[in-house]
Amino acid sequence: MKLDLSHLLAEPLDARCKGFPLAAPAMALREIGRQGWNVLRGDVPFPVAIVRRGAMRQNSAWMREFTKATGVRIAPHGKTTMCPQIFARQIDDGAWGITVANVRQLDLCAAIGVKRVIVANQVLAHGDVARLATLLKSDPALEVFFLADSLEQLAMVDAEARRQEIGRPLTALLEIGYEGGRTGVRSPTDALTLARAIAATPTVALAGIECYEGLMVSNSDRDAGHVDALLESVRLVAMACDAAGLFSGPEVILSAGGSAAFDIVARDLPLRMSKPVTTVLRSGCYITHDSGTYERLFERVRARSGEPWQSEPGLTPALEVWSQVQSRPERELAILTMGRRDVSFDIDLPRPIKRFRAGQRAPEAVPTAWQVVKLNDQHAYLRVPAEADLKVGDLLGCGISHPCTTFDKWQLLLEVDDDYTVVEGLRTFF
Amino acid sequence: MKLDLSHLLAEPLDARCKGFPLAAPAMALREIGRQGWNVLRGDVPFPVAIVRRGAMRQNSAWMREFTKATGVRIAPHGKTTMCPQIFARQIDDGAWGITVANVRQLDLCAAIGVKRVIVANQVLAHGDVARLATLLKSDPALEVFFLADSLEQLAMVDAEARRQEIGRPLTALLEIGYEGGRTGVRSPTDALTLARAIAATPTVALAGIECYEGLMVSNSDRDAGHVDALLESVRLVAMACDAAGLFSGPEVILSAGGSAAFDIVARDLPLRMSKPVTTVLRSGCYITHDSGTYERLFERVRARSGEPWQSEPGLTPALEVWSQVQSRPERELAILTMGRRDVSFDIDLPRPIKRFRAGQRAPEAVPTAWQVVKLNDQHAYLRVPAEADLKVGDLLGCGISHPCTTFDKWQLLLEVDDDYTVVEGLRTFF
Repeated sequence: MKLDLSHLLAEPLDARCKGFPLAAPAMALREIGRQGWNVLRGDVPFPVAIVRRGAMRQNSAWMREFTKATGVRIAPHGKTTMCPQIFARQIDDGAWGITVANVRQLDLCAAIGVKRVIVANQVLAHGDVARLATLLKSDPALEVFFLADSLEQLAMVDAEARRQEIGRPLTALLEIGYEGGRTGVRSPTDALTLARAIAATPTVALAGIECYEGLMVSNSDRDAGHVDALLESVRLVAMACDAAGLFSGPEVILSAGGSAAFDIVARDLPLRMSKPVTTVLRSGCYITHDSGTYERLFERVRARSGEPWQSEPGLTPALEVWSQVQSRPERELAILTMGRRDVSFDIDLPRPIKRFRAGQRAPEAVPTAWQVVKLNDQHAYLRVPAEADLKVGDLLGCGISHPCTTFDKWQLLLEVDDDYTVVEGLRTFF
Repeated sequence: MKLDLSHLLAEPLDARCKGFPLAAPAMALREIGRQGWNVLRGDVPFPVAIVRRGAMRQNSAWMREFTKATGVRIAPHGKTTMCPQIFARQIDDGAWGITVANVRQLDLCAAIGVKRVIVANQVLAHGDVARLATLLKSDPALEVFFLADSLEQLAMVDAEARRQEIGRPLTALLEIGYEGGRTGVRSPTDALTLARAIAATPTVALAGIECYEGLMVSNSDRDAGHVDALLESVRLVAMACDAAGLFSGPEVILSAGGSAAFDIVARDLPLRMSKPVTTVLRSGCYITHDSGTYERLFERVRARSGEPWQSEPGLTPALEVWSQVQSRPERELAILTMGRRDVSFDIDLPRPIKRFRAGQRAPEAVPTAWQVVKLNDQHAYLRVPAEADLKVGDLLGCGISHPCTTFDKWQLLLEVDDDYTVVEGLRTFF
């Protein structure tokens, strides 16, 4: 699978796009990496979101190794970055496909030539089913799997699919949930009822079983037990469906795996059935990792995975948001030119990691005592010791916690080399 | 001042833009309101952010009346909507100018012909000052005011302004802050020192005094006292600067006023000095209002404002995010197709207000017992009583709390009439 980004790379961007230098002329996306802009030199406006190329490559290689070693496939969740340029690298890395959260995101994948997509959600709106049908009719090589968890949804999908006359069945993954969770069938009995209903619906084929364990994980010793219990439900339902001959197609897909406990999925989900089984992880955050929640959770992934995963380099944070000290109105307070609109705040506040002052050769690490304690829409409050060496005009680089909610605040992120020179503009579609 | 939106309205949008129908061809922004799309009929994908035209017009008229009655001017904070089409309506309503949060936002205003802009922030990066200089040199009619709160910032601005040879001074508003607050000079002594330094800097002129009282307001009886104390500092510093002859220009600008206590500002900030004084509010949220924090705070505005503000219709929520029930996996739980990426969650979670089911004539109000209790990136958890009449496929309209953080999640919002037919596409630039 080779993606075609030529149309995207030729599209012009201009300074209305956050991250694009104010004085630069409009230019095609592909030109951005050829300008020699340097973040530390102030060639770009602040705040700016950057992705460190070296770190992203390391993460890419790590996941390639991990899936190879464990024998599972990955369809990275594209909703994390919504960046076709990153999707293309993930496909080049050997990804089985791309996962998305809705049909609009699927549409973007199809437009650049992704041939295998999991829509990890209930598709049901007639406009969504109609669009899915159009995509499938226009490209016989495109495979799309979506989640099903109720008879009502199945009826809605069936009604629209019959109107559309697609010529092949839609392919569904039955979603297994749990009490107190999100979507997904709550009991094996209901799961089997739905599986039989899907198998009896000519417009929809049962392609596999799915769950999402990520919300059960809370960085605790009990995580593995909770995840195992859910995976056990998946395996039970899968075996029952297999025994009843409800799966269509030459193989069965079993899919789970966010970015918090994908190691447990890789270890415990694979199953032998009467047909070949493809086990598909959907981790999205590994590609940039973070400096907060996933950094903490990854230590548990390593601890559970044994040697050599503990001794070799692991995932490393690639995403930073840089802003400028616009005021230091009190000795212990500095105000930064970034806010809720620029950086994740749904799990942790950003974590200051580097300071750069004009004239210096390279950024310096900052003391852990420097902490972002509050955000407004366009401002961050940085608490520092009274004697902290921090001046109005200094640049501050922050790590973030939860890449998904930083990516979605930027239509353009800047990929940089080790010297913070921009080597590519990364365009997102949220 | 008449803004020119022709370039913007001619720009094409396509289905990669959230809110744009998946099957519709790419079209110019101005065409969107001519398609007859109806939200309730499902002509648009969900989630979708809509602005009710009638409500926005009512808010527009209310603020026009309020500023007329109180004799103050308004430069609505553009960072709320970042929507040039809304800026144009605000200018048509008689706004004195537009307020923005940074030079990139100023750039957008200048591009459509706004002639008076307050950058309600410390400008200091050399790239920002350089861009400001370019804009001022290219349009002699453009007036831009930015905030100053430190000698370090002043030195940075002066250095770049001298390099740029603008031919007229930059115009600064000295920002008064308070202990524990955000930006702004903390003491009258420091304020006077900075005012004298500005007056002694040929590249920068002191045009007025500014503060931001919005962060002092907590929906309590003490709000007015806190705000008054800050406004008193502004008046004291303004009088001292006036007495010392530090203000340049034919008039003095006094500015304050978010969307929470602008009535206090309008009442208490105006001042007689040796030059004419223009008092400028900067409220941004009034234009769409909300169904949460500003709805609560507005009741205090009315209570403080006396008759007739209490008896006549006030501001009314115009902004709604509609999503679809994708699953009802437990009797007391429904999962909606919207999440953190679609709706504000920094102050309150979205509030369900209307339900629509295919075949109905109009949306129905929903019981207050229906509550959004949690958001994931792409999902909302709606807690309902077990017997609630809510089905998979139903559409749910939610009010939001804090318009700024909903607008910034949408590059395209749909303006609708009373029947939820789309009458205009509203483009934002975050």
